[in-house]
Amino acid sequence: MAEPIHTLVPGATVGILGGGQLGRMLAMAAAQLGLHTHIFAPESNPPASQVADRTTRAPYDDHAALAAFAQSVDVVTFEFENVPSETVETLSQYVNAYPGALPLAVAQNRSKEKGFLNENGIATAPYAIVESLEDLKTALEKIGTPCVLKTQTLGYDGKGQAKIDDPSQAVEAWRTIGGRPAVLEGFIEFDKEISVISARGHDGEIAHFDVVENIHQNHILHQTIVPARCPKALLSRAQEIATTTLQALDYIGVLAVEMFACHINEPDKAEILVNEIAPRVHNSGHWTLDAAPVSQFELHIRAICGWPFGDLRRTHDAVMTNLLGNDVDQWRSIAAQPQTNLHLYGKAEARAGRKMGHVTELKPKS
Amino acid sequence: MAEPIHTLVPGATVGILGGGQLGRMLAMAAAQLGLHTHIFAPESNPPASQVADRTTRAPYDDHAALAAFAQSVDVVTFEFENVPSETVETLSQYVNAYPGALPLAVAQNRSKEKGFLNENGIATAPYAIVESLEDLKTALEKIGTPCVLKTQTLGYDGKGQAKIDDPSQAVEAWRTIGGRPAVLEGFIEFDKEISVISARGHDGEIAHFDVVENIHQNHILHQTIVPARCPKALLSRAQEIATTTLQALDYIGVLAVEMFACHINEPDKAEILVNEIAPRVHNSGHWTLDAAPVSQFELHIRAICGWPFGDLRRTHDAVMTNLLGNDVDQWRSIAAQPQTNLHLYGKAEARAGRKMGHVTELKPKS
Repeated sequence: MAEPIHTLVPGATVGILGGGQLGRMLAMAAAQLGLHTHIFAPESNPPASQVADRTTRAPYDDHAALAAFAQSVDVVTFEFENVPSETVETLSQYVNAYPGALPLAVAQNRSKEKGFLNENGIATAPYAIVESLEDLKTALEKIGTPCVLKTQTLGYDGKGQAKIDDPSQAVEAWRTIGGRPAVLEGFIEFDKEISVISARGHDGEIAHFDVVENIHQNHILHQTIVPARCPKALLSRAQEIATTTLQALDYIGVLAVEMFACHINEPDKAEILVNEIAPRVHNSGHWTLDAAPVSQFELHIRAICGWPFGDLRRTHDAVMTNLLGNDVDQWRSIAAQPQTNLHLYGKAEARAGRKMGHVTELKPKS
Repeated sequence: MAEPIHTLVPGATVGILGGGQLGRMLAMAAAQLGLHTHIFAPESNPPASQVADRTTRAPYDDHAALAAFAQSVDVVTFEFENVPSETVETLSQYVNAYPGALPLAVAQNRSKEKGFLNENGIATAPYAIVESLEDLKTALEKIGTPCVLKTQTLGYDGKGQAKIDDPSQAVEAWRTIGGRPAVLEGFIEFDKEISVISARGHDGEIAHFDVVENIHQNHILHQTIVPARCPKALLSRAQEIATTTLQALDYIGVLAVEMFACHINEPDKAEILVNEIAPRVHNSGHWTLDAAPVSQFELHIRAICGWPFGDLRRTHDAVMTNLLGNDVDQWRSIAAQPQTNLHLYGKAEARAGRKMGHVTELKPKS
């Protein structure tokens, strides 16, 4: 195990696992701070490589490539949470890898994640662990319908999920998710989907961006609105939950916590339930590139390198809209709009639903 | 000669001659817009290459390398004006090169530059062309002392200059500048050094950022303050001068015009004299990265690619301070300051006077 770092100085190299748009924006933030970047990604032409010093193209289980990569960098981080645990173990023999093994293990598995949250006093939707069709039938009796069956691992953007409206759909749902270990989640009536982007440093310092409100379409984030249109007490509670999570995970770097805000206009019943945690920079934090002095990407780089966090105070109200698939064809009219920032990710093919870029509209701070 | 482009679409490649911090920030702006970048630079490890897709390392007179470079990109631009005219001619056989040959020729030669400005009704300091020591003696009689002898070409940041306080210093001054073709400039009593960063597009559209005030130390820009503390009528006049210059040069891209504001508190005598033009993004425009929706770097990329300019309206008052040489050692305390953006350029060696980075402090808009 490598010694914990205290401070990396300008000129040091940040290794990033994953070459998508999150890695790309992390690399640009690192460059602004005078840091070098080295991307490790299995795919050809990863968007992050277009703005990085160096790229290693290899699978995540290529131990020789991982060892060489780890020895060429001063710290490692991840743009996504589905890095195999063996990959992290290999890297950690040579260099510090943040946010570290525990946050990844928790975030990779919905069963572990919900268990961890509940043990730390953080409410989630009611759920039951489902390892077999028999389990599913028992779980349906406990949780009731409507409910959602979700694979324990590797689900994102609505993949690996099946909604169940009636117990008779159990077999079909079990087949839909491939008969893999799962959790059955009770359906929640929420008013808002919100998220908190936070960071914790080597010294235990914790800071949060303002809480945002998220609008999903077809299980994919469509729009983030900041500030979230939610009572202040709930927003404070949301940040408290993020603080508890960061501390319980001994976390270093940026963490996103996705939550449901329920009964927001009934002070006695109002509550926050955590949907999931993402141990990384997050789509719902992209607005920070344009409406905060330090963005979530810069904050993550600062946190893992032992730098002061800087100023996270929001300068504008903002609405961030994802450009999915052919949405990106509107780039020219978007580029002409006032108080608007266009960000494109350098991806060649605009497949349906693919995140091609985003646009942030700014308004005076409310 | 290549056909004029109308619009490059995301996925196109921008070629940039020069690999310093201006090329680096241009490359990052291009990447934000989903454009690829290819740097052409003679030096090893240019800072721009750290954030670019590709780099060709070759001298500016390597015609084969230039031809291959030009054929690999969709448009070419420059981060500095001292590109040999043969380089531009070679490139222009294959691809459009902006801002083009005329602005470079004018900006490369102080004699041509002043002649061009005066012909277009733009005032400069009184000057005389000096090709020999005899010329210098005659010029001194015409211009008087104090005055400054400046080489016609390749001078920047105070290099290639000699101040003359008394005609007896003529021989020494002539020797100091290496006995090269020069201009003798009358010394001006000015109140403020100001500059205008502007752009002109393929369709003739012109736009300006707010006029800034510059503080130099040892002939190198120390600080830029925006807005310039100068009467509004003079600031309007400064932008008019930039408009005239852009039109007269049939310019495409971002242009910086450095000016002296004289007698600013005497409406009858107040005037603007142009010091020099820089046919490129400019150090005095770095504040736009943090205090305008579209930065000067993004504006230049948009202009040369035929994109709409977007929104240049200032969101904050700002003070940009260059980090020269060992100033950069203060990075940690700067990174901790509120309402502050730190930009480091990825240069390994902090030589005295070398531009290592800059810091922008933001204040509420006045």
